[in-house]
Amino acid sequence: MQEVKIGILGFGTVGAGVVEGFQKNGELITQRTGIRPVLAKIADLDIESDRGVVIDPGILTTDALSVIDDPEIDVIVELIGGTTLAKDFVQRALKNGKQVITANKALLAEYGEEIYRYAQDQGVGIYYEAAVGGGIPVLRSQRAGLIGNQIESIYGILNGTCNYILTRMELERLPFDEILSDAQRLGYAETPPDLDIDGIDTAHKAVILASMAYGAPVPMEACKTSGIRGLSNQEIVNAEDLNYRIKLLAIIKDHDGEIELSVEPTLVPKDHMIASVSDAFNAVFVRGDIVDDTMYYGRGAGSLPTGSAVIGDIMEAASDRFNHAGAPVSVNMMLQKDALTYSPSHKIVKRYYLRISLFDKPGSLGKVMEIMGNHHISIASVVQNERFKGGYAPVIILTHKVKDSNFIAALKDIKALDVSGAEPVALRIEDFE
Amino acid sequence: MQEVKIGILGFGTVGAGVVEGFQKNGELITQRTGIRPVLAKIADLDIESDRGVVIDPGILTTDALSVIDDPEIDVIVELIGGTTLAKDFVQRALKNGKQVITANKALLAEYGEEIYRYAQDQGVGIYYEAAVGGGIPVLRSQRAGLIGNQIESIYGILNGTCNYILTRMELERLPFDEILSDAQRLGYAETPPDLDIDGIDTAHKAVILASMAYGAPVPMEACKTSGIRGLSNQEIVNAEDLNYRIKLLAIIKDHDGEIELSVEPTLVPKDHMIASVSDAFNAVFVRGDIVDDTMYYGRGAGSLPTGSAVIGDIMEAASDRFNHAGAPVSVNMMLQKDALTYSPSHKIVKRYYLRISLFDKPGSLGKVMEIMGNHHISIASVVQNERFKGGYAPVIILTHKVKDSNFIAALKDIKALDVSGAEPVALRIEDFE
Repeated sequence: MQEVKIGILGFGTVGAGVVEGFQKNGELITQRTGIRPVLAKIADLDIESDRGVVIDPGILTTDALSVIDDPEIDVIVELIGGTTLAKDFVQRALKNGKQVITANKALLAEYGEEIYRYAQDQGVGIYYEAAVGGGIPVLRSQRAGLIGNQIESIYGILNGTCNYILTRMELERLPFDEILSDAQRLGYAETPPDLDIDGIDTAHKAVILASMAYGAPVPMEACKTSGIRGLSNQEIVNAEDLNYRIKLLAIIKDHDGEIELSVEPTLVPKDHMIASVSDAFNAVFVRGDIVDDTMYYGRGAGSLPTGSAVIGDIMEAASDRFNHAGAPVSVNMMLQKDALTYSPSHKIVKRYYLRISLFDKPGSLGKVMEIMGNHHISIASVVQNERFKGGYAPVIILTHKVKDSNFIAALKDIKALDVSGAEPVALRIEDFE
Repeated sequence: MQEVKIGILGFGTVGAGVVEGFQKNGELITQRTGIRPVLAKIADLDIESDRGVVIDPGILTTDALSVIDDPEIDVIVELIGGTTLAKDFVQRALKNGKQVITANKALLAEYGEEIYRYAQDQGVGIYYEAAVGGGIPVLRSQRAGLIGNQIESIYGILNGTCNYILTRMELERLPFDEILSDAQRLGYAETPPDLDIDGIDTAHKAVILASMAYGAPVPMEACKTSGIRGLSNQEIVNAEDLNYRIKLLAIIKDHDGEIELSVEPTLVPKDHMIASVSDAFNAVFVRGDIVDDTMYYGRGAGSLPTGSAVIGDIMEAASDRFNHAGAPVSVNMMLQKDALTYSPSHKIVKRYYLRISLFDKPGSLGKVMEIMGNHHISIASVVQNERFKGGYAPVIILTHKVKDSNFIAALKDIKALDVSGAEPVALRIEDFE
């Protein structure tokens, strides 16, 4: 019986999930794969706290290097997080000829190129399914099942915290701040919540997905990112009335070799699959030129779901090791080209939802419409159906598909007009056409 | 550059899709994987008809054996269908040490055990992603990403024809026969349609999924199968009123080591992800003990989508070949045990929808209720809200969870009563708890 000796760095939530998964199903995994997983060592600064799993204290150490440098260990699992120590440890493990599994999206989003190249040079694998979509095998699907496809577009709900907040805002009609506080209390959101609610975490995952789809490192700056902070209930309600639902979407599209990449709160049609993704669940909708539409759904975070992805990677790494495979497709696919070309704003075409609180003065709406016309923005609908107190009225404008640069210019002009009582709110609409 | 030489048996719809996929994206696939796919030979009895792809006529042959026995060819793709010639060809290819890719669910459902054992004995791989869920990488997800999971349950919409018919029945409120004829005219349903609408095709896929989930060959007889033939519009409308939708579901559940396996039209809650799967799309909902709920969605049939899955398998086979891997997990996972144990009917617990056309006679409903009570069937709701002409009235009864054997016995007793004007209709309700 072949064995794979595993060293884990970081015994937090995910580390405990990996240990629990192997304890529950180690025998089954061995039967299925013919390879026995052996937890050799676990390093953490804290080796005293109870993680809810019973393990031999003899495998615990506070010395990460004693794990990374142990010649008996085949596979190093990096679950420390962050981009400083984790990076050093990953590179040292690769240098030692060990395969590396990581769930660290920030590390890969910010230093992926350096790490992939290093792994490729060392002829050794790095596996990171758990970094995107938690337990959902979405990267593996892209690099294996969909290997024959040019990826036309990817739409991802990649942050469970945001999706949880949006779902509750829709169901309970409570303000963002209130739901956020409650989510923090319940452990669904971190304190501070910035990485999640400002879309950074989603952007980390989006650049990894884009790298794999298009074969080159993608810098974080390439991803136009906005989050859901301060999203008003009015948008949730208006979207619903229009038969849409608001989701924080990572959007990746190939426009004849130019890549569009953004993270933004987006109105999606209620009857689209992705609109059904509620609570803390994640989903990735991938359109390939051969396979057409596919979607992958599951838990994007959490001890056991993320542990499930890590275990899948460990067993793949073990199999690659025994087959003497070098750097796997998960590394090589990221490095087909040096860089991608990105779509400039005047080539990106979107539909927009725009809410303006118009002063109740004759001609206000006319002025807005005139600006829209000047910027060649074609209007799909205008609704002004109730009057608020205070002398202004909300107007909801939905555009047809317009050039992003034109819309941005129009929005600037509208803001400069003295017709509205508050900052206009503009959100993308995505019809998945 | 490594090359993989491919021989295709059967140049029908899927064969043409594979060729088109390689023609479109062969270069990209080579870049991504480092392996160049080379279409060496294609065998078909008809090598004259236009398949919509331009190929070198020199690679076409009517002699399948000249492909299977060609020492230059690495991988044989069986796309003939059926269980006679295809079986001989697959075994001969394995005997020749060639890896085999097949999309043939009937072959694997009926002769899988023999074929997997033969492949295992020969130390060579067989890959069959395209046999279940067309372009959706669902088997690969189970045997790789989810390898660390005990599978608790699987719910699959696995037949595009049935899902297309059900979707149109719901949207258009037209009778089954009319939609079926139209589907046949449009090419969404075969003539005769039996394999699809009687659930056999779904059962073929269900037994393959169950085999992989639980590690043993599963005979077709183990799958209790009923289709959607003759499903009445009344059920579609009633389900909708009750906030359900009817789907033909493959249902696989593990009850402490005893496996429940069925294919049946099932009421699913409208707000569940799987209820959003419309038209000819497929989806497989997999619940693992570690990963929790996951879902995989896409096109379950068609030239290019199925071709996409075949191409994924070809490239995996090629990679295994160059790594000198023997029979892969896709073979070994099916053969961990000799056989499974199946849940007897008195251990299966379900909810039921029951429609009875009661004669308008005093005491009719009372007699039905008495029978239910005698068989320990607890009722969730009874609705009798309109009267038809002809002296009978439809009554809709929803049960709580009841033992299947009890319900079957009760249904038999109800049919024996002289209270109803037509055969009662009983459908499963699945709440995914």
